[in-house]
Amino acid sequence: MSLQFEILKETASGGRRAQLHLPHHTVQTPVFMPVGTAGSVKAVPQETLESLGAEIILGNTYHLYLRPGHEAIRRMGGLHKFISWPRAMLTDSGGFQVFSLSALRKVTEDGVQFRSHLDGSLHSFTPEHSIDVQIALGADIIMAFDECTEYPAGRARAEESLRLTMAWARRSLDHFRAHRDEVVWREELGGRAQSLFGIVQGGMHVDLRKECAEQLVEMDFDGYAIGGLSVGEPRELTLEMIAEVLPLLPKDKPRYVMGVGYPDEIEQYARMGVDMMDCVLPTRAARHGLLFTSEGRLNIKNKQYSEDQGPPDPACDCVVCRRYSRAYLRHLMQASEPLSGTLNTIHNLAFYLGIMQRLRNSLGTAI
Amino acid sequence: MSLQFEILKETASGGRRAQLHLPHHTVQTPVFMPVGTAGSVKAVPQETLESLGAEIILGNTYHLYLRPGHEAIRRMGGLHKFISWPRAMLTDSGGFQVFSLSALRKVTEDGVQFRSHLDGSLHSFTPEHSIDVQIALGADIIMAFDECTEYPAGRARAEESLRLTMAWARRSLDHFRAHRDEVVWREELGGRAQSLFGIVQGGMHVDLRKECAEQLVEMDFDGYAIGGLSVGEPRELTLEMIAEVLPLLPKDKPRYVMGVGYPDEIEQYARMGVDMMDCVLPTRAARHGLLFTSEGRLNIKNKQYSEDQGPPDPACDCVVCRRYSRAYLRHLMQASEPLSGTLNTIHNLAFYLGIMQRLRNSLGTAI
Repeated sequence: MSLQFEILKETASGGRRAQLHLPHHTVQTPVFMPVGTAGSVKAVPQETLESLGAEIILGNTYHLYLRPGHEAIRRMGGLHKFISWPRAMLTDSGGFQVFSLSALRKVTEDGVQFRSHLDGSLHSFTPEHSIDVQIALGADIIMAFDECTEYPAGRARAEESLRLTMAWARRSLDHFRAHRDEVVWREELGGRAQSLFGIVQGGMHVDLRKECAEQLVEMDFDGYAIGGLSVGEPRELTLEMIAEVLPLLPKDKPRYVMGVGYPDEIEQYARMGVDMMDCVLPTRAARHGLLFTSEGRLNIKNKQYSEDQGPPDPACDCVVCRRYSRAYLRHLMQASEPLSGTLNTIHNLAFYLGIMQRLRNSLGTAI
Repeated sequence: MSLQFEILKETASGGRRAQLHLPHHTVQTPVFMPVGTAGSVKAVPQETLESLGAEIILGNTYHLYLRPGHEAIRRMGGLHKFISWPRAMLTDSGGFQVFSLSALRKVTEDGVQFRSHLDGSLHSFTPEHSIDVQIALGADIIMAFDECTEYPAGRARAEESLRLTMAWARRSLDHFRAHRDEVVWREELGGRAQSLFGIVQGGMHVDLRKECAEQLVEMDFDGYAIGGLSVGEPRELTLEMIAEVLPLLPKDKPRYVMGVGYPDEIEQYARMGVDMMDCVLPTRAARHGLLFTSEGRLNIKNKQYSEDQGPPDPACDCVVCRRYSRAYLRHLMQASEPLSGTLNTIHNLAFYLGIMQRLRNSLGTAI
C-alpha cells in the first residue's frame, strides 16, 4: 500500500484541506516542505524542525547519491534512519541537480551522463537508475526522472524535451512497479510502500503542459507534480501554467508544485488546489540575511538594524523572535558567526510553516 | 555588592564545592565556562546552552570592542541583554587577543597599541581603557588588564613582563573602584556590582609566580586567576605552577585558571582547588571534528565511522548522542554542512559540563 490521500474539505476556489497518509507520517496539507539537500535542512537540527512543525522534508538524490552514496544509506536502514528523521520524506529524481550543478552533462535517449561537481568523476542517471537510487534512499515519496525544460525554450525544444520526459516517466513507472518491494523498511512498516509521482513538464506552452498532464494521468501515478516552474519566467506565467494544469490532475491524488516560492505565492497556489510545495528560498535566503516577516522582507545586514532591539518579526512567536533582537542577528551576520544561519533559518521556516498552518485552519477542519 | 563566594564543602586535597553568587546568576562551582568569543558560543543557540546546564559563559573584550563596539552594547543594556543570556558572564581584559590576533602591536608602559585584525584600524588598550570597555559590556566578572607572558620566556623577560602586569593590575583596580558604579544594570539589579579578578603571571618561574600572587592578594581583588598557562609548556609545568600558586590565594575567594584544558586536566585542577576554568578546546575542536568521549578522543572525520550507526559516545545522554549516529556526524562534516559544527559542539560541551557536574556531586552537597 502506498499513500492514502484523505480530503477533509474543499473550497469553491479549488483549495483543499487534506491528510496525506505516508508510511512514516501523516502529513497535513497543504504543506510546505523544507529542503534538506544533503541529508540536513542546512543549519537546523532535526529536533528543531520537529518543534517547528515540519512534517515532511526533502532530500536531494543527486547529492546523496554522490555522498555518502545510496548503497551506504540503504545499508544503514534508509535515509530516515541515517539522518534520524522519523517523519515523512520526499526525494527528487536527481535530474534537476544534474542539470544545474554537474559539469559536462550529455543527454541521450537513455539518460544523462555527467561529471560530479565534487570530484569530476563520471556518472550517469537513467530513469531506472534514478528509481533504484531513490528506492535505496527510501523516502516516502519519490519522483519520476525528468528533464526540467529550461526557460525560455522555443516550441521545438520544449516538444523534444517533453518527449524525453514522457518516455522517462513511463520507464520510471515500470521500473518502480517492478522494484518497489525492495525498499529497506517495507517489512518493518507492515508492508507499506513508497509512492511515485509523475512530473508535468512542457515549458511555458499550455498545450504541451496539457498533453503531458493527460498522458501522465493515464499512466496512473500516485501523485502529480508540476515541474519546470520558477526557472526565471515572469510570475504571471507560473500562475497560468499552474491554473491550466491543475484541473487536468485527478482530484483524489496529491498535487505538488516543485520549487516555489515566495510567501504570497505558496499561499496563492495552495488556495488554488496545490497540496504540496518545496523551495530552498526560506533556508537559502536566511543564510544570506534575508528574513521573511509579517512586515515584508528584511535584510538583516542593513546598518539600520545595528541597534534595533526589536524582534525580527513583531508578529512572530517563533523561538528566535521571542528571544533575539534584530541587532543581535545583524551582529552574528557581520561577525560571520555560524549561529547566524541557524537562527535566521529557524525564523524563516517558522514563517513559512506558519503561513501554511494558518491557511490550513482557514480551509477548515483543523487537525 | 560584588560577588559572594559560599563554600559548601572542602576536601583534603583542597578541592571545594561552592556557590558563586553573581548579579545575574548563582553559579555552582567548580565550573567550566564555555567561550562565547564574539557574543556567541560558536554554532550553539543560547537556549541550547541553558538546557546543557551552562551557568556562566565568556565574552572576549577584544572582539566585542571591535565589533559591534562596547558603546553600542552599553546602549543596548549590556552584553547580557544584547545576546539574550540571562545567566552569568565573564569578560577577559582583551590583552590576550591583542597579543594573539592583532597586527603591529606595540607595548609601552602605558598600554598596547595595535591594529585590528578585521580592518587594520589603529587602537590602543590601557588598563583604564580595558576596564572602561568591560564596564560598558557589563559582565558579572571582569579581568585586570595584563600581559600574558609567552612561552618560553627567560628570567629577565619574565621579570619585565611581570613588572608591567603588576603595574597594570594596580591601575585596573584603581580605575575599576572609581567607575564600578557605572555599569548599566546596576539599578535594575538592586545596586549589585561587577567583580574584578587579578591575574597571576610570572611565566614558568615559581618565585615570580609567588611574588605576583602575594602582591595581588595584598591589593585585594574579588577573585584571582592564574594566567599565562597552556601556552605551549609541558603539562607537568602547568601543574607545577598551579600547585605552587593555589596555596597563596585566599581560600574564601574564587580561583580561576584561564585557558585550560583537556577533560582530564579540568577534573584534576578542580580537585586541587580550582573553582573556574575556561577553554576554547571543546568548541573549537568540535568544529574540526574532534569529539571528546568517555572512550577517549574520536576524530569523526575518520573513514572507519562512515557506516558506524552507534552514538558518538555510548555513555553520553546528550541530545546529540541520543539521536544521531557517528556515520551521520561524519557525513555532515564531509559535506561541510553547518549542522556539523552545531551537533559536534553540543556534544563536546555536554561532555565537559557533565565532567564538572559529576565532579561537583563527588565533592559533595549537590544543589
